[in-house]
Amino acid sequence: MKILILGGDGYLGWPTSMYLAKQGHDVTSIDNLSKREWEKEIGVTSLFHNIPFEDRVDLWNKNENTHIDSEIMDITDTISLYSLLRRIQPDAIVHYAEQPSAPFSMADVHGAVTTQTNNVIGTLNLTWAVKDCCPDAHIVKLGTMGEYGTPNIDIEEGYLTVTHNEREHTFLYPKTAGSFYHLSKVHDSNNLDFACRMWDLKITDLNQGVVYGTETRETKLHKDYATNFHYDSVFGTALNRFCVQAIAGKPITPYGKGTQKRAFLNIQDTLACVELAILNPPTEKNKLRVFNQFTETFTVNELASLVKNAAKETGINATIDNIENPRKELEEHYFNPKNSGLINLGLAPRLLSETLVEDMLVGINNHKARIDNDMLSPKVKW
Amino acid sequence: MKILILGGDGYLGWPTSMYLAKQGHDVTSIDNLSKREWEKEIGVTSLFHNIPFEDRVDLWNKNENTHIDSEIMDITDTISLYSLLRRIQPDAIVHYAEQPSAPFSMADVHGAVTTQTNNVIGTLNLTWAVKDCCPDAHIVKLGTMGEYGTPNIDIEEGYLTVTHNEREHTFLYPKTAGSFYHLSKVHDSNNLDFACRMWDLKITDLNQGVVYGTETRETKLHKDYATNFHYDSVFGTALNRFCVQAIAGKPITPYGKGTQKRAFLNIQDTLACVELAILNPPTEKNKLRVFNQFTETFTVNELASLVKNAAKETGINATIDNIENPRKELEEHYFNPKNSGLINLGLAPRLLSETLVEDMLVGINNHKARIDNDMLSPKVKW
Repeated sequence: MKILILGGDGYLGWPTSMYLAKQGHDVTSIDNLSKREWEKEIGVTSLFHNIPFEDRVDLWNKNENTHIDSEIMDITDTISLYSLLRRIQPDAIVHYAEQPSAPFSMADVHGAVTTQTNNVIGTLNLTWAVKDCCPDAHIVKLGTMGEYGTPNIDIEEGYLTVTHNEREHTFLYPKTAGSFYHLSKVHDSNNLDFACRMWDLKITDLNQGVVYGTETRETKLHKDYATNFHYDSVFGTALNRFCVQAIAGKPITPYGKGTQKRAFLNIQDTLACVELAILNPPTEKNKLRVFNQFTETFTVNELASLVKNAAKETGINATIDNIENPRKELEEHYFNPKNSGLINLGLAPRLLSETLVEDMLVGINNHKARIDNDMLSPKVKW
Repeated sequence: MKILILGGDGYLGWPTSMYLAKQGHDVTSIDNLSKREWEKEIGVTSLFHNIPFEDRVDLWNKNENTHIDSEIMDITDTISLYSLLRRIQPDAIVHYAEQPSAPFSMADVHGAVTTQTNNVIGTLNLTWAVKDCCPDAHIVKLGTMGEYGTPNIDIEEGYLTVTHNEREHTFLYPKTAGSFYHLSKVHDSNNLDFACRMWDLKITDLNQGVVYGTETRETKLHKDYATNFHYDSVFGTALNRFCVQAIAGKPITPYGKGTQKRAFLNIQDTLACVELAILNPPTEKNKLRVFNQFTETFTVNELASLVKNAAKETGINATIDNIENPRKELEEHYFNPKNSGLINLGLAPRLLSETLVEDMLVGINNHKARIDNDMLSPKVKW
């Protein structure tokens, strides 16, 4: 299939580009490189050194038997995007091209405006471009489980049927997001739902849990295929940051009580889910397809204990120190999200184990000299 | 009170500026004049001639015993907005500064992007500016009843309590909007709800019905106080357009079956509702206050008949001709929205009567020579 990947330089976009190319698809990968700029602005770096996007695509194309086409492009640039879609006529478009950090979006007005402009206007532009240039293309859009927030009822997969005053209606599941980043994805979902209702576009919204992991089958093929890996308080996610804290000999720091429960998945399962979505496009017309893309739920404290125990196996005595929560969020709450959609399509989850965390710790230890302790503690509060 | 009006050059912003000034408030009215630009772009004009914003403010300040401060400013310009709020420290901010047309937002990618950038990013910018510069100011934001769409259950006022699998949760009422314009206001509502939950801001979201009417007490004081009045298929609303069609000797044209039901209110009730919201700020912390701001519901056919009958009283034999619906929308649907909030605060609705429509017809007839028949039929389809 002809697959276009938006945000191909990112933590997930780059491994997805390599993986789908290896699977024999005709891959075009684009990025505007803004994530690298944002990293410089806020003064954080990936734990693994990442050579420039164009260089790693060139390296891949030289070494591997498959080819990735690439381009530097901003999806908020209407003319460039229309021209690209008209030219390549993709069968599927995997859309990772969004600012991915809640703290970035909450730091100040510029962070919030940058996030919602890049994400909402970029996705809106894409939706129109697909309608006008390649209406049969299937958009596979990465959303987040964080769109739902933590309501006191079960989180269904995309839709909620409500009985009220003896009448019934099925709504797109109402969202209660916890940052302007998470809200940008709520806005995307509402815009995409509308595009399906009005224009019969084929769109899958993948409400993804928090992704952990450093390696995929392809990143292991060459040291310069490494994906970016953030452990800082802005772009880093909980498990990744906890592992780096253990290796750095610093306390593992859950925010607040640590009883916040979230949905998680392995980076390799992200690739599997995206591939399943592509290979099984939506069949129902007029309706946004929604999958909750995660494999397990954990409290933040459970993750901290897991890292502490795995560290012990590798000879490190890590401590856990719950610090003041820099975010305004419910710490004790109900959380029961459903995730049968992708399982029914054949997803075989790689569950989180102490052994996997031990492997992550070994990988991180190889880059121990690059760890900057200043980046570990939260600077953005809300 | 010190009141800042955003979008002070508009159909509602200008009458609100005059009305609140007459009520003795200290009014500052700002606008970026973009609506006048958009009118030129799409080739439509207001039925009544509107002198430039600065000129009508000057005229008002010369003639009346009250003063309106004014400024040309774009609320997406962060630095200007922060500087204004720091300087004037308003008690209340009435926010009309949004692109108001569904067809404009559906015409092409530029219309959609312009609408969501202006509306969503403008409101996001405002929210941060209030938090950072005047956190006690009360934001009175104009939303629309169109955010809700036409669900098959009662439309409550802002919130919906859902029982699901024997558990209960109260959500911001889930929205199913029908255009990228309506969606921009859904996104606003979600962002504003979040700002209340996180920052304890005082915000009222007024989900307004379709406004009709040409005059307020203040517009009658001088011919050059006239507000803009659109009867075209892009910026004109149903009743206003039907009245102009009757005067022009053209058929009154409901879209499709005309059985679509919508919520309506008189322009003078808009002023009354906004004033009630300002005088009674929200008392509950952490929570967006939502009012459904309308007084009556009608089907489009009922409005057409009302205009036809009123026209007959003034000696005009109008015909009704249901034309092909240029919009994808449910024509037969349940519609039962609640509106007790503003009534409980003291709103005394001016209900729509044949007499009122007769008055509108007389007013429109005075400007009959300016009617451009080409502007009456829909050009944008979705």
